[in-house]
Amino acid sequence: MPSLFIRYLPILTWGKTYNKSALTNDMVAALIVTIMLIPQSLAYALLAGLPPEAGLYASIAPILFYAIFGTSRALAVGPVAVVSLMTAAALGKIVDQGTAGYAVAALSLAFLSGSILLAMGVFRLGFVANFLSHPVIAGFITASGVLIATSQLKHILGIKGEGENLIDMVHGLITHISEVNFITLTIGVLATAFLFWVRKGLKPFLRKMGVVGTLADVLTKAGPVAGVVVTTLAVWLFGLADKGVAIVGAVPQSLPPLTMPSFSPELLKQLLLPAFLISIIGFVESISVAQTLAAKKRQRIDPDQELIGLGTANLGAAFTGGFPVTGGFSRSVVNFDAGAETPAAGAYTAVGLAIAAVALTPLIYFLPKATLAATIIVAVLSLVDFSILKRSWAYSKADFAAVLATIVLTLAMGVEIGVSAGVGLSILLHLYKSSKPHIAEVGLVPGTEHFRNILRHKVETTPSVVNLRIDESLYFANARFLEDRIYDRVARDKGVRHVVLQCCAINEIDLSALESLETINSRLSEMDVKLHLSEVKGPVMDVLKRAHFLSELTGKVYLSQFEAANALR
Amino acid sequence: MPSLFIRYLPILTWGKTYNKSALTNDMVAALIVTIMLIPQSLAYALLAGLPPEAGLYASIAPILFYAIFGTSRALAVGPVAVVSLMTAAALGKIVDQGTAGYAVAALSLAFLSGSILLAMGVFRLGFVANFLSHPVIAGFITASGVLIATSQLKHILGIKGEGENLIDMVHGLITHISEVNFITLTIGVLATAFLFWVRKGLKPFLRKMGVVGTLADVLTKAGPVAGVVVTTLAVWLFGLADKGVAIVGAVPQSLPPLTMPSFSPELLKQLLLPAFLISIIGFVESISVAQTLAAKKRQRIDPDQELIGLGTANLGAAFTGGFPVTGGFSRSVVNFDAGAETPAAGAYTAVGLAIAAVALTPLIYFLPKATLAATIIVAVLSLVDFSILKRSWAYSKADFAAVLATIVLTLAMGVEIGVSAGVGLSILLHLYKSSKPHIAEVGLVPGTEHFRNILRHKVETTPSVVNLRIDESLYFANARFLEDRIYDRVARDKGVRHVVLQCCAINEIDLSALESLETINSRLSEMDVKLHLSEVKGPVMDVLKRAHFLSELTGKVYLSQFEAANALR
Repeated sequence: MPSLFIRYLPILTWGKTYNKSALTNDMVAALIVTIMLIPQSLAYALLAGLPPEAGLYASIAPILFYAIFGTSRALAVGPVAVVSLMTAAALGKIVDQGTAGYAVAALSLAFLSGSILLAMGVFRLGFVANFLSHPVIAGFITASGVLIATSQLKHILGIKGEGENLIDMVHGLITHISEVNFITLTIGVLATAFLFWVRKGLKPFLRKMGVVGTLADVLTKAGPVAGVVVTTLAVWLFGLADKGVAIVGAVPQSLPPLTMPSFSPELLKQLLLPAFLISIIGFVESISVAQTLAAKKRQRIDPDQELIGLGTANLGAAFTGGFPVTGGFSRSVVNFDAGAETPAAGAYTAVGLAIAAVALTPLIYFLPKATLAATIIVAVLSLVDFSILKRSWAYSKADFAAVLATIVLTLAMGVEIGVSAGVGLSILLHLYKSSKPHIAEVGLVPGTEHFRNILRHKVETTPSVVNLRIDESLYFANARFLEDRIYDRVARDKGVRHVVLQCCAINEIDLSALESLETINSRLSEMDVKLHLSEVKGPVMDVLKRAHFLSELTGKVYLSQFEAANALR
Repeated sequence: MPSLFIRYLPILTWGKTYNKSALTNDMVAALIVTIMLIPQSLAYALLAGLPPEAGLYASIAPILFYAIFGTSRALAVGPVAVVSLMTAAALGKIVDQGTAGYAVAALSLAFLSGSILLAMGVFRLGFVANFLSHPVIAGFITASGVLIATSQLKHILGIKGEGENLIDMVHGLITHISEVNFITLTIGVLATAFLFWVRKGLKPFLRKMGVVGTLADVLTKAGPVAGVVVTTLAVWLFGLADKGVAIVGAVPQSLPPLTMPSFSPELLKQLLLPAFLISIIGFVESISVAQTLAAKKRQRIDPDQELIGLGTANLGAAFTGGFPVTGGFSRSVVNFDAGAETPAAGAYTAVGLAIAAVALTPLIYFLPKATLAATIIVAVLSLVDFSILKRSWAYSKADFAAVLATIVLTLAMGVEIGVSAGVGLSILLHLYKSSKPHIAEVGLVPGTEHFRNILRHKVETTPSVVNLRIDESLYFANARFLEDRIYDRVARDKGVRHVVLQCCAINEIDLSALESLETINSRLSEMDVKLHLSEVKGPVMDVLKRAHFLSELTGKVYLSQFEAANALR
């Protein structure tokens, strides 16, 4: 079955035409991404509550698996801020940070998340992610950014801290504020300021100095590495570790190890819901980056195959000492901008990081945690954008309510409750809205064949005929609403002899709605009123015919509302 | 505020015009309903696991409250089979049947249910009931009928039995089958056979005997009373109670007592979900009877006021020794057919039942429980109708899945899980369906201005223009689906320069969908493709204008698809 191979192994498609120019471009991109990823992956491991090397490991095997199974040419897979935060939140409830059980539970979480993604991909269940509405995601990412930045303040201040929500975190910081280590604070603040400058001011500065092109790009991406080098040297030279500055310490010099997640049913059960949420959030984040980048080159992203790519990447992380990963926004954009042409660039990045894991880890012994915290803070503050509140308020109150609930609950009660509440509320509000569809009583616009709302337009009506236009598909949640509206209208006005439903906006009628129509038909007949339909769509007509509704109908089905009006006048 | 009085007290409306003819008609109807209700209310108390008098009490105060607050002229409120079964299921988990705590918990359940209904009425939340789709209700009622009939077999057999689901019940019956009491079995089988004959054969028999009109009606309704009288006499005369035939025993001779439900927070918390389900199921059952009967006389039912009527009825039951009640189908139809003109008929029925509670209770000392069980079985078997499975299978697989899940889970796991699963599944299936809307690529039907699906019709197309008609409102669950479809189409065919979305079936665009449109617009622009819209509805256009989408749009908005095609050809 070669077609099946090609479907599930996108590498066969792009691998066929791989040439020297693609190789060069991919290598350059890989170099830039590798430099950028070293401090980032250490930092996200810290955020997830894991030893720093876990961040490197989580960037190696996953990136290779994604290169084989993923469909995006530029997506860079690895630890990302929001997923790392969710990992810490999920594990923090079950095991203590720093224990061996914690790292094993992280593997189990990656394993579960990978299995869920893979299953969703194979069974084509990617649509599940669609229930995360844009405003809910925007609110969730913003609130997560605030949580993540706050969670890192303890490293900048050199104090203890805890908590999975904003209230607990702030309370923890206040409790320990007297223990602040001023050397750590100085390093943290300077590193943060430097990294902000690298992000905003370095490129204009280089341009002023006459440095442009690829060199400028590499230097900009290497900026954070300079921060790492300088603060590490400072700690080493001045013996600051002995003065209370928390450092990374000994990191094993090794390729990613082969590891085994725990398959304890009790643990897997506790991790199932968090793993599901991590999978969905990670997938949504990843696919939107992938699609944005693919569009620029008119390439195709297959969402179901993306699930398989991310699923295998997470399984890779589970068996090589990592933790849950997904496609990251900033690294993918860097990869793309640096000219990556194929997923091979990811493979070269993996090689670069493997070299770093083997050769460079002794050099980061004195790397202060405050520098990693600064890296995280600068990265996530770009995610924080409260303008979604204003935007959704202006657009619709239902969307606003979902965003507000997501932000408030994420901050106050943590990521899992926050995002679940946002999704639940947006579904409920959608169901509520569609359960009260817009139904307009219409009349003929004089001199035309058009029917318009009698409340908005000057129209002609016939006293014995009620024309109702229903602006929604009919299904169980709104079927009874339609019944009520019709009985109301007919009971109020004893002169009514005909009800015509203009069905042009009805895309579907489910069995409940069909039974409601049958009930309306027979109850109207008891009242000596005939029910007619007009402008019924083809597929809806097929269904009504199949269910023998048309033979029960007391009135007729008219091709157009105008025809109905003429016949009944 | 007289209008508020009139809104919340429908009695003021019909009371004004109450006259002698209405009085006579109501009295006759009340007589027939009273005769019918005496054995029924005793039986439903048995089904709910309560002493028989509770059934009478639950029919007195509730009927009076409904007469004041309800909007249906003919609805008869009291204990009904399905709600009694749900009551037994809810209480059985918490307290043992036959204890004082059980009866008090039943009061609490009625109190909670009444409060929920009242609150839903005052806050106009009746739409919540709409999420119970017709097929789910049909499946639930059928499965409940099977459960109820099975639960009564133990009384017919004169053995012990237990269980809230079919498996446990059958297992219980098999375990105790050796203890079967053959006298009880004889009474039970004869009573069941007699009641079936009363239901099906008595009226034709009377007609053959020349008895017609009201007398025939009264005799038919009194049939079950004859069964009660004959079996009670048999037990008394032959001393069968000493031979192991279970009897009703001593029933207090009293008007409904003033009672106090328990307000223990622990108990109320446990009863909250069952009370909610009982409220919704009871409301749906009641409102559909009320609307069917009202339609026959072109009267109006106000669903929100019905909630208030049923809410006060249940509160009445809670404080007068009853249990949860609702509007019953068969008794309401009898009331209506017997000529009841106003809710006053209900009040007279209450008086009749109060007389029965005071005067007749000593007479039912020897009434065998098997007779009551027979009454229940005959009543509920008319509810059992598996044809909904066939009907829904033929109509749509989604509806069928929801029905099947409801029936199977109700039988296998009990009423609460069954109905919750049915509702949950139908919502999920609806969301799934609307998350994959029908999107047709359309082309011009030659010689017309109509655009039709290119797969179904011979149409003209322009290679550089893709016309897509979207047959669904756009919201978060289907926004990304649209994105995927469009990118797919455009990435496949490099010659495409214009995409036109025909929006005639789009009734709403939420913020997620708007952002998807913005993304589509900008990504298409990266691919050098222009996005156009056609046939946008007024309200949708308003929203797009307000959100400044139209100024970002790379293409134009056309009044009709034909106009768009002409401009882009």
